[in-house]
Amino acid sequence: MKNLLIAQSGGPTAAINATVAGIVTGAGASGKVDKIYGAVNGIKGVLEEKFVSLNTVLKDMGCIELLCHTPAAALGSCRFKLDSLEKSESQYEKILEILRKYNIGYFIYIGGNDSMDTVDKLSKYCIMHDIDDIKIVGAPKTIDNDLVATDHCPGFGSAAKYIATTFCELERDCNVYDMPAVTIVEVMGRNAGWLTAASALSRLNGADGPSLIYLCEREFDIDRFIEDVKEKLEKKPAILVAVSEGIKNKEGIYISESQQSGAVDVFGHSYIAGAARVLEQTVRERMGCKVRSVELNLMQRCAAHVASATDIAESKMLGIHAFQCAIEGMTGVMAAIIRTSSNPYEVIFRRVRVNSVANQEKTVPLEWINQEGNDVTSAMMEYLTPLIQGEVHSVFENGIPKHITLY
Amino acid sequence: MKNLLIAQSGGPTAAINATVAGIVTGAGASGKVDKIYGAVNGIKGVLEEKFVSLNTVLKDMGCIELLCHTPAAALGSCRFKLDSLEKSESQYEKILEILRKYNIGYFIYIGGNDSMDTVDKLSKYCIMHDIDDIKIVGAPKTIDNDLVATDHCPGFGSAAKYIATTFCELERDCNVYDMPAVTIVEVMGRNAGWLTAASALSRLNGADGPSLIYLCEREFDIDRFIEDVKEKLEKKPAILVAVSEGIKNKEGIYISESQQSGAVDVFGHSYIAGAARVLEQTVRERMGCKVRSVELNLMQRCAAHVASATDIAESKMLGIHAFQCAIEGMTGVMAAIIRTSSNPYEVIFRRVRVNSVANQEKTVPLEWINQEGNDVTSAMMEYLTPLIQGEVHSVFENGIPKHITLY
Repeated sequence: MKNLLIAQSGGPTAAINATVAGIVTGAGASGKVDKIYGAVNGIKGVLEEKFVSLNTVLKDMGCIELLCHTPAAALGSCRFKLDSLEKSESQYEKILEILRKYNIGYFIYIGGNDSMDTVDKLSKYCIMHDIDDIKIVGAPKTIDNDLVATDHCPGFGSAAKYIATTFCELERDCNVYDMPAVTIVEVMGRNAGWLTAASALSRLNGADGPSLIYLCEREFDIDRFIEDVKEKLEKKPAILVAVSEGIKNKEGIYISESQQSGAVDVFGHSYIAGAARVLEQTVRERMGCKVRSVELNLMQRCAAHVASATDIAESKMLGIHAFQCAIEGMTGVMAAIIRTSSNPYEVIFRRVRVNSVANQEKTVPLEWINQEGNDVTSAMMEYLTPLIQGEVHSVFENGIPKHITLY
Repeated sequence: MKNLLIAQSGGPTAAINATVAGIVTGAGASGKVDKIYGAVNGIKGVLEEKFVSLNTVLKDMGCIELLCHTPAAALGSCRFKLDSLEKSESQYEKILEILRKYNIGYFIYIGGNDSMDTVDKLSKYCIMHDIDDIKIVGAPKTIDNDLVATDHCPGFGSAAKYIATTFCELERDCNVYDMPAVTIVEVMGRNAGWLTAASALSRLNGADGPSLIYLCEREFDIDRFIEDVKEKLEKKPAILVAVSEGIKNKEGIYISESQQSGAVDVFGHSYIAGAARVLEQTVRERMGCKVRSVELNLMQRCAAHVASATDIAESKMLGIHAFQCAIEGMTGVMAAIIRTSSNPYEVIFRRVRVNSVANQEKTVPLEWINQEGNDVTSAMMEYLTPLIQGEVHSVFENGIPKHITLY
C-alpha cells in the first residue's frame, strides 16, 4: 500500500485545517493507504524533507475534531513558486526523489492560486515522464474567495461570518453617541471585493449595516465618496463605511498609495497607510466631523471561534473528496464546490482540471454591485447568505480556545 | 410607589447592558417600583427629557436575556460633565425638576470615572437641599478596569477574554511561515495597562503567548525594545508583541506622538499613528525584517459574541445590588465587587461611597510587571484568570448575532 502526503500553502484561514481533517478521515476510512505524512511549510517542506507523521499526531478523533477548530495552517505554509518546467526540472526531480523515498502514492496540496499552480506543474511533470503511480490533487482554500471553477472557497465563509458579526457589533458601538461620526472599516481584498461585500450580511437581522460599501472592482472617486458620506450623515448621526483594501482611483492607483506621497516618518520613509486610514484623513480634512478608521487585519482570517459551521463542514468534505479523486487514480485535478441551489442551499462536490484554476482570479461580477458603486445587490446577498450559516462549537478551556499543534 | 430611572454613560463595553438587565430584574422582583424609565444618552438625555419606557421595550424575559448579549450602551451614552456645584446649580435644578415630573425615586447611573463624578455631584446636591426622596446610586463599568474601590469593572473581563482569544488565534496565524516576523498588537489603555496584560492569558492552554508585553505603567525605551525583539527572534522565527496604546518614553511623551513629528499627509497634517504603528516603522527601519502592526481597536470593547460568562453574570449582579442600595434608601454610593478569594474564585457585592471612586484611576501595580518591564508576573495572571472564565451563548440568527435595540 502507498502512503499519503498532505501539505498546506498560501495565507492562513480559519477553515484550512478542516480540509486536512477531511483528507485524514477519508484516507483512514478507505483502508487504502498505509502511512499519512504532513509536509511542514508546504512544497518548501517537501523539498527540505520536513515531514511529520499525521497518524501519530492525530492519534484519535478528538484530535481530528480539535484540528477542525484550529485556525491557520497547522502544517505551516510557504510562499514558494516552483521553477517553470521549461526553465529547470531539477526541483521536480528532487521532489519526486523524496516522494519515492517515502513511498508516496498520493500528494494532496491545499491552497490558493499559487498552490494550484504547483499542483498543475507537478502533475504535468509526472505525466511528461510517464510517472503514473503518484497522484497529485489540489484542494482549494482562500479567504479572498477568488478561485475560479469552484462556487466558493473554504475559509471565505468563516471570514465572511467574522466580518458580518463584527459589523453587527461595531454598529451597536458606533450608535451610542448622538453626534455625527464616521467609522471607516477596511476589509482584506486587493483585487476581489468578496470579503468587503460580506459586511452587508450584518443587515440580515434588521440592522442598518454599513451605510456605504466600496468594493475594489469599481473605480473609487474620493470626491464622490465625500458626497456619499455627507448624504448618509443627513439620515443618521453615526455611519459605518466598508472599503476593500484594494480600492483604486480612475488611474488604477491604489487609494492607499495615491493620497500619501507627502507622508513621511522621522526616518524619511513614507507611511504605508491603509485605504481606510487615507479616507479617515480625507474626511477629517474636508468635513471636520468625528471620524475613525478600523482595520480588521489578521483577525478576519483567523477568528476560528466564530467560524461558519457551513464553511468548516464543506472544507472537510472537500478534503474527503480530494482524497477520493487521488485514490481513484486522478491527477492534476482540484476538488471543487458546485452550487445547485441557493434557496434551499444545496451543493455537490466535483473535480475540475487544475490548469483551469491555476493563476486565475475570480472577482465580483460588476452587476452584483449597485449602480452608484457604494453597495451590493440582492443577488450578492443571495450568494453570500448561505455561506455563513451555523455556529461552530469550538473547544474552550480555561476561558480561551483550545488549539492543536502538529509540529 | 416611586419610579426608577436608569442611564448609561462613558465608552461602550460588551457587558454594560447586563447591568441594566440586572437593575430591571431586581426592580421587577422587588415589587417596590412602579414604572422603569431609561434615559437616552446618559445624563444629557435626562436634561433633554429623552426617556424610554423599559417596561414596554423589555416586555419579557426573552428581551432581558437578549439585552445581556447586546454590546455597547443600549440606552446610548454621552460625554457630559455636570457643572461644579460651586459654579452653577442650574443644571441640577433642571435635573431635579425633571426627576420630580416623572416621579423618580431612584436613579441608577452606569458608567466609569466621569459617571461616578455625576453620581457624586447629584447626590451631594440632593443632600445639600434636604432632598431625601430621590436616591442616586452608581454602577461601575469600563473595559479599562481603572475604577478604584472595586476589584474589577464589568466590561473588562469580556474585553480581556476577547484579547486573550485573539492572541491565541494570532499566534497560530503568525507561526505558519518559517521566516523571521514581528507582529505588534496595540491594545486599548492610555493610562492603565490591564487590557494589555490580558494578552498573557493566551498562554493558559500552553501556547507561547506574546513574546513581549509592554504596559503603559512602565517607561518605554525604544532602543531597549529593539534589543528585546532581537533577543526573542533568536529563540523563534515569529514573535507577537503586545503594547498599550498609552506607552510613554522617559520624558512622559506618548510613543504614538514622540516618533512622528516629521510625518505629514498631503494636507500637511500629521499622521496620528498609534503606538504599534510607530514601533512597526521603527522595527522596519532598524531591523529590516518582516513586521506588521495590528490594532484591536473597537472590536475589543464590543465583541459580545465572545464575552466572558463571569463578566456578564457579575454585571447583572451589580445591577441587582445597585438597585438594592437605592431601595434600601442609600444615595451617593456605587455597587462594587470585593474579591474574597482567587482560587477558588469568590466575590461578594458591597456598596462604597462614590466620592471615594470619582475622578480617580486604578493603574497596574508596578510589582505585577516583571523586572525587565516586558511581561507580567504570576500575581497578575492569578488576578486576571478568573475574570475570563465561561463562555456566553449569545443568540445567533441567520448566521449573525441577534441584538436588541431599546430606542
